[in-house]
Amino acid sequence: MKINRDRLMKNVMELSVIGKNEAGGIDRSLSSEADFLSREWIKTYWRDNLKKEAETDAIANLWIRKEGREALSTIVFGSHNDAVPNGGAYDGALGVLAATEIMETLLENKIETRHPLAVVSFTGEEPNPYNISTLGSRVLSGRLRTADLKKLSNNKDGSPLSACIEKLGGDIEKADEILIRENEVAAFLELHIEQGKRLETMKCSSAAVTCITGIYRERITIIGEANHGGTTQMQDRHDALLAACELNLAFEKIVKKANDPEVVGTIGQLAVRPNEVSIIPGQIVLMLEIRTKDEAVKDTIVSALRTEATYIESRRGVTIQREVNLDQPAMYMDKTVVDAVRRGIKTVSGHEKVIELVSMAGHDAANMQRVTRAGMIFVKSLFGMSHCPEELSLAEDIEPTVQAMMEAILILDKELDV
Amino acid sequence: MKINRDRLMKNVMELSVIGKNEAGGIDRSLSSEADFLSREWIKTYWRDNLKKEAETDAIANLWIRKEGREALSTIVFGSHNDAVPNGGAYDGALGVLAATEIMETLLENKIETRHPLAVVSFTGEEPNPYNISTLGSRVLSGRLRTADLKKLSNNKDGSPLSACIEKLGGDIEKADEILIRENEVAAFLELHIEQGKRLETMKCSSAAVTCITGIYRERITIIGEANHGGTTQMQDRHDALLAACELNLAFEKIVKKANDPEVVGTIGQLAVRPNEVSIIPGQIVLMLEIRTKDEAVKDTIVSALRTEATYIESRRGVTIQREVNLDQPAMYMDKTVVDAVRRGIKTVSGHEKVIELVSMAGHDAANMQRVTRAGMIFVKSLFGMSHCPEELSLAEDIEPTVQAMMEAILILDKELDV
Repeated sequence: MKINRDRLMKNVMELSVIGKNEAGGIDRSLSSEADFLSREWIKTYWRDNLKKEAETDAIANLWIRKEGREALSTIVFGSHNDAVPNGGAYDGALGVLAATEIMETLLENKIETRHPLAVVSFTGEEPNPYNISTLGSRVLSGRLRTADLKKLSNNKDGSPLSACIEKLGGDIEKADEILIRENEVAAFLELHIEQGKRLETMKCSSAAVTCITGIYRERITIIGEANHGGTTQMQDRHDALLAACELNLAFEKIVKKANDPEVVGTIGQLAVRPNEVSIIPGQIVLMLEIRTKDEAVKDTIVSALRTEATYIESRRGVTIQREVNLDQPAMYMDKTVVDAVRRGIKTVSGHEKVIELVSMAGHDAANMQRVTRAGMIFVKSLFGMSHCPEELSLAEDIEPTVQAMMEAILILDKELDV
Repeated sequence: MKINRDRLMKNVMELSVIGKNEAGGIDRSLSSEADFLSREWIKTYWRDNLKKEAETDAIANLWIRKEGREALSTIVFGSHNDAVPNGGAYDGALGVLAATEIMETLLENKIETRHPLAVVSFTGEEPNPYNISTLGSRVLSGRLRTADLKKLSNNKDGSPLSACIEKLGGDIEKADEILIRENEVAAFLELHIEQGKRLETMKCSSAAVTCITGIYRERITIIGEANHGGTTQMQDRHDALLAACELNLAFEKIVKKANDPEVVGTIGQLAVRPNEVSIIPGQIVLMLEIRTKDEAVKDTIVSALRTEATYIESRRGVTIQREVNLDQPAMYMDKTVVDAVRRGIKTVSGHEKVIELVSMAGHDAANMQRVTRAGMIFVKSLFGMSHCPEELSLAEDIEPTVQAMMEAILILDKELDV
């Protein structure tokens, strides 16, 4: 039984038109018109081709279901329909359409499974105007309750999240009811583009994801002395920006020293005060991020950074204040699911060796792991490009990966007795 | 004949109240309420104590005049009444009040001079909402004409400069009429705080200013590659911020190599795009500034910077675009005036050696040098602090400096035959 590659690729192309901007990117953030229209497309496709009427839950996740032969928990698979501003056609959308393709293949082959199956398209996985990512799966996993949701509003127009969710067919008043209960879901599987270059470097189409990286963030304030950029001699300066420059370069060196493709560090946000051409920068506020699955590696980097910061402080006469902003540990995927994914990939590729990767980005699967057995399968991203119009995965890599995911679902259906 | 130190310091304190904010700084930018009120204070002081009615010229510079015995050009002295936001009590104000004190001393001692004398308080010397500094002296020197002035408007409320100048008693329609003609002014002298630490280091109260520094600015754009801060491995990054950090540190090293207190370089303004915590910076725009009196030194720095930029470009795979934004040569003060200042300082201090400094900040005197013989005298700034509430010069340094300036004026009056 094979998935239908051409049908899947046609669907990817059709969905990618929704929200396409003049730069060729896709604008489909939560609450955008394109978010709404892409959901209508998905529901219509399910109705017309799978003969399944979509259910919309309280946080507006979309679902279709297929019954199982036995009284077992549901095996769920899917991803999200939304995109980052000026994003690409594959992040999220490919996971929803791959799940749809698998369900369609099983239906047209009249496959009866032991477990009920469900396809899900999650609400608002990406950063969005409500400042909350992985929204749909957060609610399912109980990380966000109705009381929390009521506090969220659109940072552009101030409208409440409730209005957006209502427009999408949900109802945040009932959000607490959709928390996934014990043994409601047997397993969750998500297909996603890698968004990095590791599969391309290794010339492989697919990988089993073993873990979703931990994310550690510090908000760092460097206090120097704002002074006249003409009259203050070089040796009398306490330039907070120069201190930040040293810190950033030292940080890069420390992270590179780990010499591990799954350890990265970034200073992506930095603000200079007073930010005037002739005034020595008196204050810098920056955000520093470390991603690794390994707490010990993170601790080593943080400690080396402390040494560097102290050195910079004393040499430049500045104060460096560090504040942990986020310290989210790695989320390991369920061993049974990872193993099923590994076996699915092996069956399709015919190779003994299966690539295992840490996901360096966050995903809905991390939330799902809190309430069920979750796993992910990655498909190769060309040039490692993602969150941009150039994002690309090829049919020749997508086909075996979706096929492997279907195999994994059938393995889980056969072997899981919950 | 001695100036009156206590009267002068009392005036400094009284004027410093106007525009004082809760942080202890002074908010007295062009067109502010405090700008208006400080002018009223000055005019009232002149009327009540010097028995001189202020004249307001077309750009709202304030003037009082004293006749001379001979048919000679006028010797002018003064500074500006405005301040930077949250500025100090001495920058500008001290120069106006010192000039006032000298005029008052001459008047009460019934000194007759050969030349007519005039005290001026310039309009808008500091950066202001109309994006034009040294406004009053620019108009007097012909650098700005009515046609230019009509194009300027307030960057906060959009109101035209003409409305502000009208409120202050001027009329930009007549601005072209006040351009200083040949032989209208014999000499110009300005007293100002040093704003640096050189006099403090040398334990001297006063310095003769030989030159106003040249200012060179580049707008530099660094183009890297914005990419996902999780999924992009360290060696695949083209981080524009890290490139900017290297450039800033290399720039500091190059400028320090000149090992000259009168050569400084600053990157004071820097913006990161997209400036998101998990996105590798794709673009940096920064402003770089070099100040030196010496074109050759500037050229050496610019050339060394070019070498560094090329190195950073090739090593980090980024593009560095440099654009000269300002290239203002040094303005040398008039030799006769500098000599008179030097002799004035020597007379008061009793020391043979007189400190000569390059002004590292711009001043109205630079514009005045274009149309007459200009010179400046600096008074010691404590801790080199300026443009901040902590700005401070002591009476014990101010007194001999103002006295020396009066001596210089009397020397010029005696020796200049124009």
